[in-house]
Amino acid sequence: MNSRELSDLLSKHENIYILTHTLPDGDAIGSALAWGAALRHHGKKVRIFCPGVIPRKYDFLPDVSVIEHVFPPAPPPGIIFILDCGDLDRLDYMRDRVIKAGIIVNIDHHGTNLHFGDLNIVDTSAAATGEIIYNLMLQLRLPLDFGISMCLYAAIASDTGSFKYGNTTSHTLHAAAALLENGVDPALISQKIFDEYPHSTIYLLRDALATLQLDDTLPIAWMNLHEDVLDDYGAKAEELEGFVNYAKNIHGIEVGIFFYHTSKGETKVGFRSKTVDVSAIAGNFGGGGHPRAAGCTIKGQAGPDAIRMVIQDVKDTLVIKSR
Amino acid sequence: MNSRELSDLLSKHENIYILTHTLPDGDAIGSALAWGAALRHHGKKVRIFCPGVIPRKYDFLPDVSVIEHVFPPAPPPGIIFILDCGDLDRLDYMRDRVIKAGIIVNIDHHGTNLHFGDLNIVDTSAAATGEIIYNLMLQLRLPLDFGISMCLYAAIASDTGSFKYGNTTSHTLHAAAALLENGVDPALISQKIFDEYPHSTIYLLRDALATLQLDDTLPIAWMNLHEDVLDDYGAKAEELEGFVNYAKNIHGIEVGIFFYHTSKGETKVGFRSKTVDVSAIAGNFGGGGHPRAAGCTIKGQAGPDAIRMVIQDVKDTLVIKSR
Repeated sequence: MNSRELSDLLSKHENIYILTHTLPDGDAIGSALAWGAALRHHGKKVRIFCPGVIPRKYDFLPDVSVIEHVFPPAPPPGIIFILDCGDLDRLDYMRDRVIKAGIIVNIDHHGTNLHFGDLNIVDTSAAATGEIIYNLMLQLRLPLDFGISMCLYAAIASDTGSFKYGNTTSHTLHAAAALLENGVDPALISQKIFDEYPHSTIYLLRDALATLQLDDTLPIAWMNLHEDVLDDYGAKAEELEGFVNYAKNIHGIEVGIFFYHTSKGETKVGFRSKTVDVSAIAGNFGGGGHPRAAGCTIKGQAGPDAIRMVIQDVKDTLVIKSR
Repeated sequence: MNSRELSDLLSKHENIYILTHTLPDGDAIGSALAWGAALRHHGKKVRIFCPGVIPRKYDFLPDVSVIEHVFPPAPPPGIIFILDCGDLDRLDYMRDRVIKAGIIVNIDHHGTNLHFGDLNIVDTSAAATGEIIYNLMLQLRLPLDFGISMCLYAAIASDTGSFKYGNTTSHTLHAAAALLENGVDPALISQKIFDEYPHSTIYLLRDALATLQLDDTLPIAWMNLHEDVLDDYGAKAEELEGFVNYAKNIHGIEVGIFFYHTSKGETKVGFRSKTVDVSAIAGNFGGGGHPRAAGCTIKGQAGPDAIRMVIQDVKDTLVIKSR
């Protein structure tokens, strides 16, 4: 672990810029806020940036409103922490300004991380970037107060699906336990992150479930929804997160797929699987992801045609695999 | 803690009978199997009983098939462990034979426990009976092998909703962490317990969501389903577990209610709330439960009338509370 180098670096710089990725999730937001608060308490001048809208469900996190969406063209020199980003493209429109702005410290847990930093603190055994921040804070003896603990707990709970995913280790649970000892309320955080949604989400779920189809012979289930339906309910695309699992979770089903037809004529495809590598299937259509969770975007094929094409590819993959 | 007394008792008896409650959940089944295996490895003759069908999703737990459903009329004397039962009525049809059969050790975590045992190991700070069994095994120095760890992890994960509920403490998470160190796969257990259901469940959910209603002025949302629909899909009532949360989880909703109309003309009502005490409302109709999760059964009123009556009572409660 590079905590010695990090400590040296921190002793030499006053200005701290913390960035995380576009389409920010709980780990991105919680990690950035926690690390920002820790360094602010440590006497640094801290600014936090994200090239994407913070979903409203994270409004409960302390100081979430300090996150900025425009990176300055020529900020005073300092350390740039890039959190939870496998590569610099995850910084979206901020990328070009950021890479010119100073020393880059890359803190991440993704196996695909490109080690783009001047200092790289990449720990693929960590369930979340929040778990790495927790480790760093212990190593640097930075105090974990209630607010920081809440942000880190939200980060870790978010990236493990409340400790359900295979990335959950005994270290993850011990870290979460230590955070609870600082007064964090697990029920409040879980309710906010996982179990609260606008009324429109229920309508979207009902309509999506109504489109559920199962293949006659192969263990594939899929659903679809058009952006028009979201518009009807005043809903946002982020509300569709997790819908694909309703297909994947059906007993006997191996691959669940969710098709989202946009008004621009594209079809965004989300894959989830129990054991099959769906990142390879997504890759066939220019997408990617993890073996059990991947995605791609189909352009130039209308809705039903995109579905037929993708389902055929999944069927071919399953048939080859079963040979 | 009574581990000294328990240790003395165990040294004097060879026959062990372990019982848990009717409508068994993951904590009941996991705790009973873990405790049974621990005492069997300790050289005891162990039999495990449950007065209810074990839901199929627990088939993956080691030795789940050893659980018996008929308690013998005159078994050889021994210790009777009653797990996860607040009172003896939870033993349903086994109750009368059990109370005559020997020394009763009551191991439970419910605040309502009646201390009906000759020895009572009741720890209301434990998130699950599985957490108490884990503590006892450490105190008695009984080895936690892979199978036992899996059963205890399933028990704890089940009763905390995968560490989402307010009963989750740092001790709960440290215990779960120790169980993972014995090789338990959190993703497998979570998938089996929380995220796998028959195809019919999706149809039931879709149909239930289609009945969703929100009150015009008060934060109440409800859904209903008739047993006939379950019959159409070949579904079981246990598949409805958790549906009520879809109503409760809506942003701004305080009380979610699910009405299940049976073919016998009864209406079973499940209440979930964010802050209101719904056990009092359930109590108005002869039911009960916890402040945030309660239930009752309405007899003698047909479906829509039962709904109207209950909703009116919830509205009255919310209006009084808001004064």
